[in-house]
Amino acid sequence: MNILFSFLPKPEQQANLIERFPHVKFYFQKPFDEETLRNAEVFVTYGEDINASHLEAADRLKWIMVASAGLEKMPLKEIASRNILVTNVRGIHKIPMAESILAHILSIKKSLPIIAQNQRNSIWSKKVYSSELYGSTALILGPGAIGGEVGRILQAFGVHTIGCNRSGEPSDFMDDMTSFSELKRALPKADFVISILPSTVETKNLLTNEHFHCMKPTAIFMNFGRGDVVKEEVLLQALQNNYIAYAVLDVFESEPLKEDHPFWKMENVVVSPHVSSHSSQYIVRALDIFTENLTKWLDEDPSLINVIDLERGY
Amino acid sequence: MNILFSFLPKPEQQANLIERFPHVKFYFQKPFDEETLRNAEVFVTYGEDINASHLEAADRLKWIMVASAGLEKMPLKEIASRNILVTNVRGIHKIPMAESILAHILSIKKSLPIIAQNQRNSIWSKKVYSSELYGSTALILGPGAIGGEVGRILQAFGVHTIGCNRSGEPSDFMDDMTSFSELKRALPKADFVISILPSTVETKNLLTNEHFHCMKPTAIFMNFGRGDVVKEEVLLQALQNNYIAYAVLDVFESEPLKEDHPFWKMENVVVSPHVSSHSSQYIVRALDIFTENLTKWLDEDPSLINVIDLERGY
Repeated sequence: MNILFSFLPKPEQQANLIERFPHVKFYFQKPFDEETLRNAEVFVTYGEDINASHLEAADRLKWIMVASAGLEKMPLKEIASRNILVTNVRGIHKIPMAESILAHILSIKKSLPIIAQNQRNSIWSKKVYSSELYGSTALILGPGAIGGEVGRILQAFGVHTIGCNRSGEPSDFMDDMTSFSELKRALPKADFVISILPSTVETKNLLTNEHFHCMKPTAIFMNFGRGDVVKEEVLLQALQNNYIAYAVLDVFESEPLKEDHPFWKMENVVVSPHVSSHSSQYIVRALDIFTENLTKWLDEDPSLINVIDLERGY
Repeated sequence: MNILFSFLPKPEQQANLIERFPHVKFYFQKPFDEETLRNAEVFVTYGEDINASHLEAADRLKWIMVASAGLEKMPLKEIASRNILVTNVRGIHKIPMAESILAHILSIKKSLPIIAQNQRNSIWSKKVYSSELYGSTALILGPGAIGGEVGRILQAFGVHTIGCNRSGEPSDFMDDMTSFSELKRALPKADFVISILPSTVETKNLLTNEHFHCMKPTAIFMNFGRGDVVKEEVLLQALQNNYIAYAVLDVFESEPLKEDHPFWKMENVVVSPHVSSHSSQYIVRALDIFTENLTKWLDEDPSLINVIDLERGY
């Protein structure tokens, strides 16, 4: 059996796979050779390098493992019509993202930017006015794998967690739940409003001027999902009018953020360049998921993890 | 019964006490009036305003509640000879200190100072090289109330915790334990070495050049206990010779840190002006402890919390 990777794991990671699966012939090619794809049964890709015409020639292809969360650049219709299995690395972002979100929350609460500024000026000042996470309330828009991990850690800090999704049904590590349609009633309780929502028809421009009006003037809004959950002018206005105290943004309507964008220079905005999911452990975890699935695949065990429903697209 | 406070809780906090204990006469005075102390049975103080001569006149005094952790400015010998009970607010610092320590750890791991510097220059750069807390190892010097709280939260982040105290006996939220005498063997395992040790004969200059030599070159040393656990020239040398990667210091041999001290300008040092225990909740928590103890005192229940052993001094 031939397996083609269109990215290059580290030499020792490649060697581990070869040793672990002696009956499999592995090809590691970046960019991949179309001839090799034609003879491959399994294709492992970041999901940005395969198109419909590749598929036509790939007669033997039965499984595509996408080593990323997003499938928006894949020819899903053609894949579905060929009955090719697709799996991804869902959940791989939860640890680095939860750590990034907690880092930003704690940094602001414990006044680290002020402490750093005083250090640059060699100023010893105890007037840094830090406050506590303990006893506060966080509203998490999108309490899925990542949001649940954020909730779990926030609960360890003694934070009350409110999850918000379409249905309002219970979700792990959320003390309370609400739904998109009831959101305005929950917002006045939240010290942190954290969006980890993907971009869908339902989430696009979900947060309006009215929502920001409902938030506490001391609230910190954090966007770690997708930039289009709120129009930038709505957010800008909320910040300029002090409807909220702070925004921490890892995603934007348009990325990279333009050099002359007002967010860069605003005292109450943190601009993070869409790096919250970055991790030195990314490939390690992707290969762990792949190894688990390949073992099952070779055993003809159908219970692979992270199988994509090609109709829904996730 | 008369109770004298030598600091001023907020008016609503004073009102709460008066309402809750209608048979007690409360006096709130800053500075306190010696005549009032003479008639007080209970004295509530930060522990820096009472001397031996005050005690001589305070015939009726039976209990001193110290609303701080340190008792070094109290006339303990005279208090012991008069058989006056002393209680303090042990444990009151654990929440703000654990949050501060986690804030600094996460800030460094997730490259927040680099992200902030790029924002000041309006630079969108994904090359921030953040790493993960998950799967790392922390060595906690002084796994008491504060160290245990740090350990509990680190464990929630998936960090392996090693506690280090005099005896090496098990301690809450520590996966492993070691003792001061075995410390050098544990140091090479630690990604974080966090001191929360008080200043005692045993902890003074506990960490030598050799200890820093044993640490990982990538280790982050954090001092949130007392400055004299390591001589500043030893720490300076360890940082300049890259025995360790980073130091986060909330305490120093001499405070405030002098304006021309090299720490201020070092890229791999964070100078925090002894603020990690600061909290807006300090008085609230001190009054909670006091209320619990006063209730017992009035019921003649001897099981007061945070009673000081005046022989040992803690």
